[in-house]
Amino acid sequence: MKSLLLTLLLVASAVATSHGTSRSEPYLIHPLRLKSGSGSNGASLIKGINCASWRLGVEAHNIIDWKTVPQECEEYVGNYMLGLQYRQDSQAVTREAYLYAKSLNLSRDGKDIWVFDIDETSLSNLPYYAKHGFGAVPYNATSFNEWVEVGVAPALPESKKLYKKLLSLGINVVFLTGRPLSQKHITASNLNLAGYHTWTKLIVKDVSFTDKTAVEYKSAERRKLEKSGYRIVGNIGDQWSDILGTNTGHRTFKLPDPLYYIS
Amino acid sequence: MKSLLLTLLLVASAVATSHGTSRSEPYLIHPLRLKSGSGSNGASLIKGINCASWRLGVEAHNIIDWKTVPQECEEYVGNYMLGLQYRQDSQAVTREAYLYAKSLNLSRDGKDIWVFDIDETSLSNLPYYAKHGFGAVPYNATSFNEWVEVGVAPALPESKKLYKKLLSLGINVVFLTGRPLSQKHITASNLNLAGYHTWTKLIVKDVSFTDKTAVEYKSAERRKLEKSGYRIVGNIGDQWSDILGTNTGHRTFKLPDPLYYIS
Repeated sequence: MKSLLLTLLLVASAVATSHGTSRSEPYLIHPLRLKSGSGSNGASLIKGINCASWRLGVEAHNIIDWKTVPQECEEYVGNYMLGLQYRQDSQAVTREAYLYAKSLNLSRDGKDIWVFDIDETSLSNLPYYAKHGFGAVPYNATSFNEWVEVGVAPALPESKKLYKKLLSLGINVVFLTGRPLSQKHITASNLNLAGYHTWTKLIVKDVSFTDKTAVEYKSAERRKLEKSGYRIVGNIGDQWSDILGTNTGHRTFKLPDPLYYIS
Repeated sequence: MKSLLLTLLLVASAVATSHGTSRSEPYLIHPLRLKSGSGSNGASLIKGINCASWRLGVEAHNIIDWKTVPQECEEYVGNYMLGLQYRQDSQAVTREAYLYAKSLNLSRDGKDIWVFDIDETSLSNLPYYAKHGFGAVPYNATSFNEWVEVGVAPALPESKKLYKKLLSLGINVVFLTGRPLSQKHITASNLNLAGYHTWTKLIVKDVSFTDKTAVEYKSAERRKLEKSGYRIVGNIGDQWSDILGTNTGHRTFKLPDPLYYIS
């Protein structure tokens, strides 16, 4: 399997390389195995779950409503989250967000805001998830809340960099989180500790939204912001529920998160 | 750089592996380099564009309105498209689509439809793009149309498999493409040649939509379908413009496509 993959990559690489030098030569094109008839040609190449494909499926919102990371992908997800790719993937998102922000014609009346989610966006719970199966074991509210109450989650550096750049552009920041009122104080303290020292609002989830989805809760709070005269020029989160629904903002950005899914 | 990456991955791998064997041991947690102060800690690790991050950014709709694949990613994209990962990523999407379709309570009155895009969804233009820089050179309408007029694009096997399974479930298929009326005949012929032998409608782009975006055109056509009494139970395409807008269908699926962007 690995040698087959390598061979294919080498062939492909040769094709791609030769392409640059001589456009008139014939190419060896992978025929997508159309002619063998069954239509299920890819299947034999794939045993079980391809964890890279699973992660892409999650990020592109094809795989939804999942409860835990597939068991066989725990190590893959752990390596991804602790390695460089997660950071580079995050940077590609925040870089794009900054390029967009820089292009805006801002009013500088204090009403241009950017909505930041907190968990796995502004703050990283990676120290917690690294000890709790990287999302491959079911969510445990008790132990997660204990971690939150310590208030030492580090910043996701790429998000903090974006945050600082947005502030310097004159865009104000609103934090909008699914954390409850009981955690508002420690969350503010944690944000400060992690280097987020200023914000226009820190919105936590009111008990009236207990039976609502994150999409409903966050849409409602964003609607209130817009009714108050704020213009949501950008919105960033790690969950699709941060950026779907209504009043999503002029442009949205999805940070990677293969650890958990919130609908 | 490569050796650093390898070292980090090995460390991460060791952490992830030890995790499975002994939960009480202390972990070496990557601290996200929070304490060094600048907030731009990731930057020094990253030179230029990380092509895997670029591709993820495209698939998660963070990177939009791009004209061509970044030059430095041509070989990466070529390898990806010709290799196994593209196929496995496609399979992860169509597998999810089938699991969803199977779960539906269908009426079997002929009104449940699934919308399929054509290029890079039902049919693959990979033989063309392999000869034209894998999206890294600007789109050339003349040469692309010459390729389309030959009518020999192969099926994307994963989509064809989904198509057959959907038909067997009693879901009808509507093809909705940005191809013009002048290419309708050859497109029907190509679909047949590639193994798509039946459809409820093959909708091509009317000249009245010439100045409209793909999102506007496809939304309008889907609206017409729903007004005619069809229920769009699913919608699959390789572009975000296939699945954004209005009347998107009960659930949407985004196939991978790092070759081009259509707004």
